[in-house]
Parts: sequence; structure tokens; C-alpha cells
Amino acid sequence: LSISILNTGLWLSEPRLVAGNMTGTSVDGIDVAFVEFSNQAGRHSYVLKAFDMFPYNHETRNLILELINGKAEAELLSSLNIILAEEYYSAIKKLSAESGIPLELIDAIGIHGQTLWHFPNPVKKSGYDIRSTYQAGSVSTLSGLAGKPVVGDFRPADIALGGQGSPLVPIFDFNFLKSDYKNRIALNIGGIANITILGKDCSEQNVIAFDTGPGNYLIDKYTKIIFDCNFDANGELAAWGNIDSELFGMLKLIPFIKQSPPKSTGRDFLPGEIELFIKNKYLKYFTTNSHSYDLIRTLTEMAAWSIAENIRLFAPGAEEIIASGGGIHNVFLIDCLQKELPTLKIINTEELGLPADAKEAVCFAYLAYRTLGGLHGNIPSVTGASRKAVLGVIASY
Amino acid sequence: LSISILNTGLWLSEPRLVAGNMTGTSVDGIDVAFVEFSNQAGRHSYVLKAFDMFPYNHETRNLILELINGKAEAELLSSLNIILAEEYYSAIKKLSAESGIPLELIDAIGIHGQTLWHFPNPVKKSGYDIRSTYQAGSVSTLSGLAGKPVVGDFRPADIALGGQGSPLVPIFDFNFLKSDYKNRIALNIGGIANITILGKDCSEQNVIAFDTGPGNYLIDKYTKIIFDCNFDANGELAAWGNIDSELFGMLKLIPFIKQSPPKSTGRDFLPGEIELFIKNKYLKYFTTNSHSYDLIRTLTEMAAWSIAENIRLFAPGAEEIIASGGGIHNVFLIDCLQKELPTLKIINTEELGLPADAKEAVCFAYLAYRTLGGLHGNIPSVTGASRKAVLGVIASY
Repeated sequence: LSISILNTGLWLSEPRLVAGNMTGTSVDGIDVAFVEFSNQAGRHSYVLKAFDMFPYNHETRNLILELINGKAEAELLSSLNIILAEEYYSAIKKLSAESGIPLELIDAIGIHGQTLWHFPNPVKKSGYDIRSTYQAGSVSTLSGLAGKPVVGDFRPADIALGGQGSPLVPIFDFNFLKSDYKNRIALNIGGIANITILGKDCSEQNVIAFDTGPGNYLIDKYTKIIFDCNFDANGELAAWGNIDSELFGMLKLIPFIKQSPPKSTGRDFLPGEIELFIKNKYLKYFTTNSHSYDLIRTLTEMAAWSIAENIRLFAPGAEEIIASGGGIHNVFLIDCLQKELPTLKIINTEELGLPADAKEAVCFAYLAYRTLGGLHGNIPSVTGASRKAVLGVIASY
Repeated sequence: LSISILNTGLWLSEPRLVAGNMTGTSVDGIDVAFVEFSNQAGRHSYVLKAFDMFPYNHETRNLILELINGKAEAELLSSLNIILAEEYYSAIKKLSAESGIPLELIDAIGIHGQTLWHFPNPVKKSGYDIRSTYQAGSVSTLSGLAGKPVVGDFRPADIALGGQGSPLVPIFDFNFLKSDYKNRIALNIGGIANITILGKDCSEQNVIAFDTGPGNYLIDKYTKIIFDCNFDANGELAAWGNIDSELFGMLKLIPFIKQSPPKSTGRDFLPGEIELFIKNKYLKYFTTNSHSYDLIRTLTEMAAWSIAENIRLFAPGAEEIIASGGGIHNVFLIDCLQKELPTLKIINTEELGLPADAKEAVCFAYLAYRTLGGLHGNIPSVTGASRKAVLGVIASY
């Protein structure tokens, strides 16, 4: 009985230039990618035309953190939706100016939005089992500002269908990173590390993807506290240290690591007793000393080991890792990973023409491309949803 | 360069059954209307198939009021979007059961959402002039739950284009209440009263609509305080009172009444000194007395007079009033209005087949119908937007 609301045939009939927009939970800035997608009888290809990251306005960042960490009035919440639409539009205009690609050539925009809350486990409220996620940033406002179709709010439909609303990157991995000749792992090392298992013979419905444990967030956190650096550039701090075997032993026992997928984790990964151990051993003094490097070294080893352990346990036939995310700039971490998995070839997405930092923005451009083409964006075997769904909402301008 | 995202030709080619959903600022309940729209060469007609109002779950109502009146955590905000989608879906299912119209026959759903904030005047934030409105209720979630296209979030696009995001009912008034033979006024008496001026020769681009002043909200407020009733049923309390000429004189001097349109007002209509006057004269005693009725009488006369005065000033050629909204049940108020405008014929929308309380839900069904047909929903001469816009966001399911 249902009719086709979208003009999907027309959308898929020609290459489309889509601006993808990603803003992560680190709230540091706005990734923008201009990506051209083409469809040949259901097989998609893409060309990344431009990419950059633009920092959030300082005031905007503070407003977001205020909403994430404390209480807020309806006014702030309402304003933030509009502010983010303005910020996203501004970032898209900057990339247009930088790249020389005129805004007029952009067919549509896809935005992730700024996550203020994500808790896909049921909580009883008003008599319903409520499982909720919230990405701020008004799709309708951005569409009005840009005079273009905008797609956003990708996660709630999957959650409404019983899924976790996450991860959404695997549909990209399956379409663009899978090989017919090698068993591949798509690895993203962000704050949290996650993998998509892409067997050379796998079909979309048996793709598996899950979080392996911490990526950069623990390294970044303690690098900030001890060295007042936002991250360990190239892994140079870790390289000066030695492994703290006592701490490493404790970290290796965290049950999440060996738990079977599906599984996901967050920035509350570390058990309280390990946090306390670190505090007592490494944060007692107000100056750094030679042992400070040991902590960073151990956390870096832990990130590499937990990724490797998950691959050994759940993707034993893997032959290649296609790595992306900020963590691939941490040379020391990647070296550790290679030592853990000596027979696997680690390829940066950059070698495939995709800058490591651009992947998520490209992915949300692709999800918008799919939605406008009437194609599902979730993979039920990954998210746990009861069915595939065309994700998101569309403002048609 | 822009391509048509929506399959508008197909949508408009056959009659469509749309469920319209309205939840007002009084936060009392969910109005649902099932409306069939047809298109004959650009002329639209509708048949109201079913209508009812379903009270909010008590817990939901409290959550909404918590968010409107105080501060809230991101978790509440995120949950509320999902709770409202559940409540809206539940109300739609109830109307389906009541009316015997199966859900399968519904082609799409249009939701207003629950307004938590509406302030279309610029406030400087993060370097932008932010003008914002926020209607809670996840369009994507409702679409996932119902397995149907859902349209919502109608106001932000108009605001992004410089408009007030309000009123949006005039496009309905123009299409369905305008007469080719009589100069009509579409009057809605809600908390605030507003009119749409529909001259018999007017075209859409010179439709004017604006708030005339208080509708029921002052009457309701003081009826509640003094008589502990939620409203003055049939105007019976007002009918027992006499006009307080001193107060009425003060009310008549409020500049908003005679101010030229465009104009809009809210529940902060009453100047502080008049609130104080009322407090000192009428709220000093803890019991009602014969003068208590005078206050209700005077506020009722004021509502009628301010509507009439605006019609005399800004629509002097009006011949008929098509009245809707809860206020038309206040017989005394309508009598006062008729006495103020003795030559005008006052017709309830009910006489035109549209229950007075159903108008807004029908209107948001119509706005969804228009959006899916690729048609604009705002009238720039009414909202002040720089151009027409296809309003809202669409979840295509």
C-alpha cells in the first residue's frame, strides 16, 4: 500500500556531489568532505573531491559541553540546534572556498549532528521502554540556509527498530573497503577502536562490526593530564616509556576485550579500580618523571593488544587491515599492532585515496546518498535492528 | 541545478489519507485527525474522516513541563523525543481503533511536535543572530514505529529564511476557507486569538494573518485562580458579572491591539501594572465574591473587543467570520463579538464540516500533504520569510 515518497530513480541515475559533515564526541571541530558518488547497476563508487576539518567556534563548543555535562534550559537547547546548522553551513562554505568547488555543484548535504546523548538500552519512562539517541543540529534550518536537500538524524530509526543505532559505518566499509580476494578488517581508531569484519566471500547480511576497546581516548586523557598535550604526536611519548606489567596485566583482564560481539563501549571503559591504580601510581606528583612515559606506553600497548586480540578471537582468517581514524597517526601504536599481528598487512585508507581523518565525513555523505536513493543505511546483523531501514530525515528545501 | 528529491507527481496523482497530529502549548493532549486530501489540477479538497483528542500520559506531561519551565539534562531531552513519538503513535492507533479506519490505509503522518521554545527574534550567540524554535518529537522514530512516511518540524525552515515560523495555518485558510463571493475572516480563538484576512479577490501572496490579542488564556488563567475551573464553560461565569470599566479602560489602551500587522503575542501579553491591578482588586481575598465574576466578564469582553477592533482597523470590508478554536464554545464571548460586529455573520467551522477543535490537526495533516507534494507551506506575506519554502523534514521509513 505504501507509495514511494522519494524520486530515487532520478537521484541514482547520475553522479551526485554530496557534502558530508561529521562532528564527533570530542567536540573539537567539524569534518567536511565533498564526495561524488556514482551508481552502476547497484554498485557504488566514490571520488573524494575535498576534505578539511574546521574548529568549532569556542562559544559553540562551550554551549555543547554545557548541554552534555550539565542541565540546560529549553532556550539553550533550541538555540544550539540553530547555531549548529549555522556552523555546519559555515564549514561547508569554507571548504567550498578552499577547494574552489562552487556550492552550486553540491546536490545534497548529509550531517551526523552533534551527539548530546546516546543510550540505546531500555529505560522505563511514561510506560514505554525508551531507548534514545540525540544528535543536535537542525536539518530543516541547514536546508533553508543552504537552499539544498539535507539529510540527518540517521540513528533514531535503527533504534526504533530495536537496533543500537550504531555503528553506521559498516555499510560504507562493505561497499567500498571489501575485497573479493583478501579477508579484510576495516579498523577505525578513534576515541574508541572498532572493526568491521569483511570476509572476501561475505555478503552484506553477515557483516559483523563491533568495538574492540579503547582507541585514543585513554592515551589522550592521560597525555593531557600529565604532559598537557592533547595527544601523543606520533606516539613519541609512548616510545620513551617501558611497559608497566602490573598495569598491563590488570588491563588485559577487563572482560569486555574477550566478550563476544555484538558489543560496544564508551569513555567509561576503565574500571574504577584501575583508574585508582593509575591515580595513585602516576598522578601523585605534580611534575612528570621518567615513569610518566611508562603509563602512556602501557595504554598504547593496551590499545594495540585489544584490537589484535579481538581480531585473533573473532576474525582468525583476516589477511589485511584497512586502518583509519586519528589513531593511525600514532606510529608507535601502529607498530605495536603490527608486532601483535605479524602476518597481517596494515594498509592506511590513505593508500586507497581516503585520508584517515575523512572517513566518517565521507561515510555520512554516503549515508545521505543512500537515503536519497531510497536505500537502507543500517545492517541489521551489525546494529541488531529487526529490519533494514532508510535512515534519517530529509529536508527537501 | 537542483534536482527533485521527492516523487511529487505520484504523491499528488491520487487521493491521500494523512494523519495529522497537533499538540499545543497547553500540553493537555494530542489532537489526531485522519484527513483525505485530493488534488484536481492544483486545487485541493479534503474530507475529515476521523478526529479525536487523547490526553497525554501524566508522566509525559510532567516531563514536558519540566523541560519548558526548568533546566533539564540531555538524557531527558533525548528521551522526550522518543516518548513523544511513542505517544503520537499510540494516539494514532487509538483513533484508528475508534474510527474503524485501518492504519494500513494511512499514507503518511504529519506532526506539529511539542513546542518547548519559540523565540523568532534575534539573539547574538556564537557570532550568529540566532532565531530559534524547537518542537520535540522524533520524526524518524515515529516513522520507524509506524512504518510510514512522517513529516514534522515545520517551523525552522521559515525562520531560517527570516520569517517568524508562524502562523502556518493561513495556507490552510487560503485553500479551504476563502470564498470567491464574500470577504471572509478566518478567526481562531485559542489561548491567543488570531485572524487570517481572506478578501474575496485576494491571492495567496497578499494574504495577511496576525494575532489580535488574548483569546482564552487570560480567561482560563483567572478562572483557574479564582474558581479553580480550567475554563469558563459556555461563558457562564462571565455572564454573571458586570464590566469593570476601570480595568476595561486600561486593557483597551494596551498598544498591541491597534498596532499594525504583522504582529504576534504570547502569554506575556498583560503589562505588569495591569496584572498588579487585578491582583490587588480581585485576588486579595481567599473566597470568591460577586465581583469575581466581573473580572471574568471584563476579560471576556476584552477578548471579543480586541478581535473586533483589529477587524475594524485592518479588514474593514469583512463580511463573514469563520470561527474555530476552543473559544467558540464560549457562547458569551461569541455573543460579545457579535455585538461588537453586528453586521458580520459569524460561522463556526463546524457548519463547514470542520469541528472547531480539529482545525489545527487537519492543518498539520495538510502541511504534510503539501510537503510530500513538493509544495510550499509558508506564506511569506504572513510570516515575513524571504521566500516560499517546502517546510519540514521527512522520514521516508
